[in-house]
Amino acid sequence: MAEEAAVREQAETVRRLKQDKADPDEIAKEVAKLLEMKAQLGGDEGKPKFVLKTPKGTRDYGPKQMAIRERVFSAIISCFKRHGAEVIDTPVFELKETLTGKYGEDSKLIYDLKDQGGELLSLRYDLTVPFARYLAMNKITNIKRYHIAKVYRRDNPAMTRGRYREFYQCDFDIAGQFDPMIPDAECLKIVHEILSDLQLGDFVIKVNDRRILDGMFAVCGVPDSKFRTICSSVDKLDKVPWEEVRSEMVGEKGLSPEAADRIGEYVQLHGGLDLIEQLLQDPKLSQNKLAKEGLGDMKLLFEYLTLFGITGKISFDLSLARGLDYYTGVIFEAVLLQQENEHVEDTVSVGSVAGGGRYDGLVGMFDPKGRKVPCVGVSIGIERIFSILEQRLEASEEKIRTTETQVLVASAQKKLLEERLKLISELWDAGIKAEMLYKKNPKLLNQLQYCEDTGIPLVAIVGEQELKDGVVKLRVVATREEVNIRRESLVEEIRTRTNQP
Amino acid sequence: MAEEAAVREQAETVRRLKQDKADPDEIAKEVAKLLEMKAQLGGDEGKPKFVLKTPKGTRDYGPKQMAIRERVFSAIISCFKRHGAEVIDTPVFELKETLTGKYGEDSKLIYDLKDQGGELLSLRYDLTVPFARYLAMNKITNIKRYHIAKVYRRDNPAMTRGRYREFYQCDFDIAGQFDPMIPDAECLKIVHEILSDLQLGDFVIKVNDRRILDGMFAVCGVPDSKFRTICSSVDKLDKVPWEEVRSEMVGEKGLSPEAADRIGEYVQLHGGLDLIEQLLQDPKLSQNKLAKEGLGDMKLLFEYLTLFGITGKISFDLSLARGLDYYTGVIFEAVLLQQENEHVEDTVSVGSVAGGGRYDGLVGMFDPKGRKVPCVGVSIGIERIFSILEQRLEASEEKIRTTETQVLVASAQKKLLEERLKLISELWDAGIKAEMLYKKNPKLLNQLQYCEDTGIPLVAIVGEQELKDGVVKLRVVATREEVNIRRESLVEEIRTRTNQP
Repeated sequence: MAEEAAVREQAETVRRLKQDKADPDEIAKEVAKLLEMKAQLGGDEGKPKFVLKTPKGTRDYGPKQMAIRERVFSAIISCFKRHGAEVIDTPVFELKETLTGKYGEDSKLIYDLKDQGGELLSLRYDLTVPFARYLAMNKITNIKRYHIAKVYRRDNPAMTRGRYREFYQCDFDIAGQFDPMIPDAECLKIVHEILSDLQLGDFVIKVNDRRILDGMFAVCGVPDSKFRTICSSVDKLDKVPWEEVRSEMVGEKGLSPEAADRIGEYVQLHGGLDLIEQLLQDPKLSQNKLAKEGLGDMKLLFEYLTLFGITGKISFDLSLARGLDYYTGVIFEAVLLQQENEHVEDTVSVGSVAGGGRYDGLVGMFDPKGRKVPCVGVSIGIERIFSILEQRLEASEEKIRTTETQVLVASAQKKLLEERLKLISELWDAGIKAEMLYKKNPKLLNQLQYCEDTGIPLVAIVGEQELKDGVVKLRVVATREEVNIRRESLVEEIRTRTNQP
Repeated sequence: MAEEAAVREQAETVRRLKQDKADPDEIAKEVAKLLEMKAQLGGDEGKPKFVLKTPKGTRDYGPKQMAIRERVFSAIISCFKRHGAEVIDTPVFELKETLTGKYGEDSKLIYDLKDQGGELLSLRYDLTVPFARYLAMNKITNIKRYHIAKVYRRDNPAMTRGRYREFYQCDFDIAGQFDPMIPDAECLKIVHEILSDLQLGDFVIKVNDRRILDGMFAVCGVPDSKFRTICSSVDKLDKVPWEEVRSEMVGEKGLSPEAADRIGEYVQLHGGLDLIEQLLQDPKLSQNKLAKEGLGDMKLLFEYLTLFGITGKISFDLSLARGLDYYTGVIFEAVLLQQENEHVEDTVSVGSVAGGGRYDGLVGMFDPKGRKVPCVGVSIGIERIFSILEQRLEASEEKIRTTETQVLVASAQKKLLEERLKLISELWDAGIKAEMLYKKNPKLLNQLQYCEDTGIPLVAIVGEQELKDGVVKLRVVATREEVNIRRESLVEEIRTRTNQP
């Protein structure tokens, strides 16, 4: 067909423009044209051919995935509630200006909405900035809250590794003026509890402090104006070897080789209390006010973490930087070290599953009078955790139920639809989880097969004789045992047998 | 200040353009300029003045609102699970073309994303079209699922009446080829269960059928080409008197006065089985194939609803039309009749809280071969329900807890921070929901006051003497009773006293 040839030609145009790294606007225009052409291309029966997919970097969750997801959420929410958090929710989009100037180099990844008249809006990029906006707007100076919701980033997706453009963040934050490092320590305890609870294998929580980083940059001879950009170079050290980071600092960012080499010595350090003590004695760092403050607080943090009994999984790591602009104090990031299951190790790459830190200045950016509300918080990224659990489940033979149905209402003979409808209605009204096949005269075998397929443990069978006798035949699917139960005792019997109140 | 005057002038420009119903693009441009000017207007300390708000038609949910919202969700999810539904989730945006041509006149309310290169995207307008896309994409021909998520409409918001631009839908749908009206009846049973469970006061579920409507239009002499537009006029009858709807049909839509009057006779009819019987005998309607089919199914539906014992709240109503294009059979809408509470009646207007129907053609629009999957479903709109419950709660004196904390770990003397941290860590690790004040040396009175304020029932108090004796003093906040509990029994004691396992 001529139209199909035209589409192929257009696709080739787009490919070439992308290869040539042409003007993004031009590429976008040609892509739009291509999509349009594809949509209009007649399919069978002359109907338009849709591109049947979810947007790039997003996915659907089917019932099986949802069952896993709800297990993960349940573990996380339990932990947040155990620590006394309230819960809030904010809109999926914010005024564009609310997000402006909060994310540094990452701002280019924000999704904007089309200007259809009225306000200019953007999809939220994280839950931290909306939280700060919420605090300032409602003049809240003191709250411990969690928020679980999707955030949006026009990032390069790597979906097999759990990196998406639409993904959940599970955030726990403590806002308020408190004695130092007590809330900070609780955030780390929370990460420790959740990762232990989910049994994802060994992990380490790296900790650092923006003040230590800034102090280090200062004593290494980095000019003030380059702190942020050198910081984002350091941030790459978990993915890229030092040599490459160094050449970025010196080559692209114009840092002196001497300064880079001094940084290189510091950023390979990691350890615990003894490293903190050592750096507190460091002739250069100990002279820097910011670094000294940061190191003092880091020491206090480790004392509290010792009381919590979790220092075994905490590493004070000078190479940890974290990209976002808004951090002001402690920063941290939890990394999975290896998978228990070798089979899984091949397919899911190990990486960061939680991160956070202190951001004492963000709320003040929203307050008309600049009043600050100190905050510290943690964000659990569940997609990577979810990828691991999903693949682990697939590798195992475990059969996961996607409904909670306790009983199937069935019949052994024809013409009993009305009786089934009456019985199932009684069960629903009594709070029993019940299903029936939507057929007038289903075969008993098909009804039993449905239970096998979906894991329904019981079948309540109505038949002519049972109706006369005022009973229902209750069948246990697993054992094929059948007993007649008086109709008025049926609800109680189902509850007992399924252990559900 | 000169800048402020400029802003006021710009605001006036915008107001005038809107009043003159100027070109929307021009208005948008001037609004953007106004926002820009406002943002740059220097505030105190010379920092930019943010417009500190959520986008138009959206709101935050604070902890109190979330507590109410979670009660409502819990009732709805329980019901969906009772009926054996699985759960799915889809992305918040879809390819723009996925939504195109599904919503008739309402398509103009869809939010588009800005073209930032790549695919053209739109925020979902409901959960039904994404569900149909999901079925076609995964070739699923048989599923019963629920989906609770936010949808987006650039509608005129009326927030006090629970109408928002971002709002939740709670959808339950049954897809598959089944015997007639059995799944349809279950959807109505579900609405009945949920509205009864939430105790929102009296309600009625109006039922009609697109085939009856189309048959009625045909026998009244409406030309085929005007079915949809006349249908959307009829849809306004719940808000506007017949005379106005009639004049829209005749004046704006060019229907003959005779046809309009014939429609007027039908649409005032509502009733139950007897009305269905009467219309089955109607000399004109009974001659129309579509209407006859629809009436036959409506009769069957009422038989099933009789078995479910819920016909008391069901009204077959010929004026019910529902706007969306995709319905093909039964349609329904649940309406609250009045508030129990007179105080509330003033502020919350009564209205539709659930709706749905059969859409047998929608999945076929996505399938490359046009294969159809018959579907019927219901959507519960929780914002209006939520508005009612929120205002009812405000009117009552009920104090709603926003956390589940069981115990506050406190101290009566100074220098016990470390002991508090150790104890709270033990409690967390044992699964107890525990909090402490983030202060080194909090006053006992402040700690007790915190419990009063937040509803924490127990206080575990550590002191020098208790530490020596190996006990913790457990205080019941409500009664002020205090007992010493051996430290190793504390977890068990807290569990018993708070009835939480």
